[in-house]
Amino acid sequence: MIWKVYLAGEIHTDWRTDLQKAVERLDLPIEFYAPVTDHAASDDCGASILGAEPSPFWHDRKGAGLNAIRTRPLIEKSDIVVVKFGEKYRQWNAAFDAGMASALGKPLIIVHSEEFQHALKEIDAAANAVTDDVTKVADLLRYVTLGKL
Amino acid sequence: MIWKVYLAGEIHTDWRTDLQKAVERLDLPIEFYAPVTDHAASDDCGASILGAEPSPFWHDRKGAGLNAIRTRPLIEKSDIVVVKFGEKYRQWNAAFDAGMASALGKPLIIVHSEEFQHALKEIDAAANAVTDDVTKVADLLRYVTLGKL
Amino acid sequence: MIWKVYLAGEIHTDWRTDLQKAVERLDLPIEFYAPVTDHAASDDCGASILGAEPSPFWHDRKGAGLNAIRTRPLIEKSDIVVVKFGEKYRQWNAAFDAGMASALGKPLIIVHSEEFQHALKEIDAAANAVTDDVTKVADLLRYVTLGKL
Amino acid sequence: MIWKVYLAGEIHTDWRTDLQKAVERLDLPIEFYAPVTDHAASDDCGASILGAEPSPFWHDRKGAGLNAIRTRPLIEKSDIVVVKFGEKYRQWNAAFDAGMASALGKPLIIVHSEEFQHALKEIDAAANAVTDDVTKVADLLRYVTLGKL
Amino acid sequence: MIWKVYLAGEIHTDWRTDLQKAVERLDLPIEFYAPVTDHAASDDCGASILGAEPSPFWHDRKGAGLNAIRTRPLIEKSDIVVVKFGEKYRQWNAAFDAGMASALGKPLIIVHSEEFQHALKEIDAAANAVTDDVTKVADLLRYVTLGKL
Amino acid sequence: MIWKVYLAGEIHTDWRTDLQKAVERLDLPIEFYAPVTDHAASDDCGASILGAEPSPFWHDRKGAGLNAIRTRPLIEKSDIVVVKFGEKYRQWNAAFDAGMASALGKPLIIVHSEEFQHALKEIDAAANAVTDDVTKVADLLRYVTLGKL
Amino acid sequence: MIWKVYLAGEIHTDWRTDLQKAVERLDLPIEFYAPVTDHAASDDCGASILGAEPSPFWHDRKGAGLNAIRTRPLIEKSDIVVVKFGEKYRQWNAAFDAGMASALGKPLIIVHSEEFQHALKEIDAAANAVTDDVTKVADLLRYVTLGKL
Amino acid sequence: MIWKVYLAGEIHTDWRTDLQKAVERLDLPIEFYAPVTDHAASDDCGASILGAEPSPFWHDRKGAGLNAIRTRPLIEKSDIVVVKFGEKYRQWNAAFDAGMASALGKPLIIVHSEEFQHALKEIDAAANAVTDDVTKVADLLRYVTLGKL
Repeated sequence: MIWKVYLAGEIHTDWRTDLQKAVERLDLPIEFYAPVTDHAASDDCGASILGAEPSPFWHDRKGAGLNAIRTRPLIEKSDIVVVKFGEKYRQWNAAFDAGMASALGKPLIIVHSEEFQHALKEIDAAANAVTDDVTKVADLLRYVTLGKL
Repeated sequence: MIWKVYLAGEIHTDWRTDLQKAVERLDLPIEFYAPVTDHAASDDCGASILGAEPSPFWHDRKGAGLNAIRTRPLIEKSDIVVVKFGEKYRQWNAAFDAGMASALGKPLIIVHSEEFQHALKEIDAAANAVTDDVTKVADLLRYVTLGKL
Repeated sequence: MIWKVYLAGEIHTDWRTDLQKAVERLDLPIEFYAPVTDHAASDDCGASILGAEPSPFWHDRKGAGLNAIRTRPLIEKSDIVVVKFGEKYRQWNAAFDAGMASALGKPLIIVHSEEFQHALKEIDAAANAVTDDVTKVADLLRYVTLGKL
Repeated sequence: MIWKVYLAGEIHTDWRTDLQKAVERLDLPIEFYAPVTDHAASDDCGASILGAEPSPFWHDRKGAGLNAIRTRPLIEKSDIVVVKFGEKYRQWNAAFDAGMASALGKPLIIVHSEEFQHALKEIDAAANAVTDDVTKVADLLRYVTLGKL
Repeated sequence: MIWKVYLAGEIHTDWRTDLQKAVERLDLPIEFYAPVTDHAASDDCGASILGAEPSPFWHDRKGAGLNAIRTRPLIEKSDIVVVKFGEKYRQWNAAFDAGMASALGKPLIIVHSEEFQHALKEIDAAANAVTDDVTKVADLLRYVTLGKL
Repeated sequence: MIWKVYLAGEIHTDWRTDLQKAVERLDLPIEFYAPVTDHAASDDCGASILGAEPSPFWHDRKGAGLNAIRTRPLIEKSDIVVVKFGEKYRQWNAAFDAGMASALGKPLIIVHSEEFQHALKEIDAAANAVTDDVTKVADLLRYVTLGKL
Repeated sequence: MIWKVYLAGEIHTDWRTDLQKAVERLDLPIEFYAPVTDHAASDDCGASILGAEPSPFWHDRKGAGLNAIRTRPLIEKSDIVVVKFGEKYRQWNAAFDAGMASALGKPLIIVHSEEFQHALKEIDAAANAVTDDVTKVADLLRYVTLGKL
Repeated sequence: MIWKVYLAGEIHTDWRTDLQKAVERLDLPIEFYAPVTDHAASDDCGASILGAEPSPFWHDRKGAGLNAIRTRPLIEKSDIVVVKFGEKYRQWNAAFDAGMASALGKPLIIVHSEEFQHALKEIDAAANAVTDDVTKVADLLRYVTLGKL
């Protein structure tokens, strides 16, 4: 079985690439899914493809509508959802994806620095694992998919 | 991942072929599903295969029963549903498919000319994207499946 | 048991009131649900409550968003969905509601004049009953809820 | 029908009380649900009831576990979910609840000041209505439940 | 809690009335649901209400469509489904209802004479209880709802 | 797409083989599923594998339990369910499978001779197509899977 | 709202009565559900009502079939499931009910003495709260239903 | 079709290997899934990967959280769930998995020695087959997947 793992959250560091490389080195049977991680593209896709909007609200609505065409089916198809909360921005989107994944019954792995421990307590409590270190996610996926420590 | 995209609605223009060609040129990982698009076949399939009916109502019921054997599982298997409203006919069937897709939680892309904007407002409001131009659907599917503008 | 019956579709005639009166005369155990049937209110509710929009598309999106807050939970709570297709307008919304109801497994009763028989064949084929006469819907609901002809 | 409306998000202002009073004045058929809004109780409930924990992480896990016994069934039972994002704190919990509600197919009403418009774009795009003003939520609920502007 | 018990199957004996009387004597907290048990009405309801059909197939289709408006929601709302197979007729309808109830996860109680034991083995194997005696169903419902022998 | 078609019902004629051959000649993209069609094996599998039972009721229960391990997942995985009612035996099992398939939302094709038309009316009314001729099922599957008459 | 709380597990102490009394003193809006707690009745109900069986296996199967008619719908209707593991017997049934409740998305409260902590770790990890003291369950239900410490 | 069979329960004997070898000899179309069967790894995975915990309760919670990332999706993906109850330990986890599988509608095969017959009666009653002998499970899977005795 190939495990499908969705990587939600932070898009301003290379954590997805780092994790994917670690997983490749370990030769794990995993296919990764992710949202669009090009911040500018993800902001402007709606206006760029479907036409400009004078109002920033509708500009954003158009783009977010497109992004959800990608993210919603990918989250639904995933076996595991990893959500990383980074240092920058409000990242409500990461929490929103965690909520969707939780309601869909997906096992959740949450990654965040200790600083956010209290603020993320409800989300952490819905998670199967919480860590502040992406390299531990690779170890964890190794254990989960191969069944070995 | 191969994305499954159902193309509902108008069957009197070549929009499906145009879209499929555009998607092939872009080499997108998409498998298209569609209803039977041969209008006469879709009207007469029931009577032709299962036997004639004197009443037009039951003639149509027989054919529609057969068409739904195809359309219902295909819509359920799809990741994305595109619905095009054309100029001809009432096209209630297109709206019916949009309603089914929406209730099943499928992301919806609606295509129609501006003329129908007000009449289609409830359906547009349930959609992730609305456009009057099939070529934009190809661009949109490129963005959704490849994650690049 | 009180049966919950949603009355979708046409809002430009008094068919809901007529049906409700007939049902009251028959003293049937039915609670009716309906969308907002004041056409102007249903068109302008979004802009009126949440603020005006210069673009007709977003004006309509705002209103349709509000209308769906009402219609979607009511359709989901219903035991039976009646959809009437009238003479005026395109009525794609009626077909959309029929599609949602069908995907949710609700028994459908479709009302339309004979003129629309062929155009509505796919929707009729998904229905438990089709008639051109609202008074027959009352008879039908009498049979369904009381179990007597 | 009594509509069930869950009020998620901000717990440091009186918006729930304000909304409930407005709704009572309008005599709307609404029963409100809410999480525990006493911040200290919501933080310490786990340790207080089930026993102290030396680690802040497990202190929070215990409390969050209890809070979810309340919030999850209430969100599932709701017909409509209102989520207010306030000025204080990260409020990831509000976004998490919005994600759960969205995955469960609940109509969403999002309340936030204009300042957060871009940061909340994905959540706003999943909503039926977005406003910066709680009094508009009362107007909106009046329209949705009574069907009148 | 009032238990909802659907009584499917045989309509040519008084077993429903007998069971209901026994349950009333025991003062059990049960609300019974049933299909239309007037055989002639159940056969002719479609033609009688919606108009005659020359073909017996469509005559029956019309009637069966109406009957399902009643039976499908009632089975879905039930906590327990009792299905009685009698001596007369093929009673495929009883087996069909049992299949629906089973797929919906309803506890099944099957009543039939010993003569049908082998023919009904797959249905019996899907049941929680099998008996040849309606009076035992009353005893069983007493145990299930009151928790006492 | 490979369509999955479950063939329920009659096990005393060669209709499955005939249909499969016809479908192979037409080169249709179909994978067929079926229950165990060896009548003796299907009756005795439980006792044969798990140990004999003195009582015929428990002998049959053991066997039926095993058969359902096969049939239930196969019906759930199917895109289309064909149910054939033959001349011999009561065939309640066929009707039970039809009920399960219907509750699971599977398109149903029912095959039976005209003689059973009235007795099967509720099941026929839940079907997308009804015929008395297995060769028509092949034509029908050709239309459904290839989209051509 | 009246909260529905299912009390699974141990039937050889008075913990349900103790909890119910505590909850009544606190005047909490709770309706309790429970399996049959008369051990002898729960063992013998099948044979007593439906007829004796010579084999202990089928004797037990008959009784367990009846018990599940009660327990399965009650667990499905519950908002919260409390499972108590006592000192006596293997209590696999308690763990089975916990597994069902967890798969159905019910918040779980697990009660057991510290001695079983390691043996119950997978079940505890699926729970919202774990305690060794039934009086804490009353406090917890007070917090959950009234929202106050 | 490749059947997916989850092997839950006992991890202190070689029953999974024995069964897999028997199934390979029979050349059955089966892919087996299993939890992590290295007892020490399964106990310590959480602390080992995510960091040590002073409290045994949280040590176990961390490990159990990780194990569930593997077991829950595998059970959901399975067509059949086999649960073996062995002689050692309390094995509540096996019963918990059986409860989850049952609520998810998976056919259950239960393996246990006769000694546990009464203690496991509720779980056995939810099963399609019960045996005390793993070699019979191979025979049974042969029958189920190949359709031959």
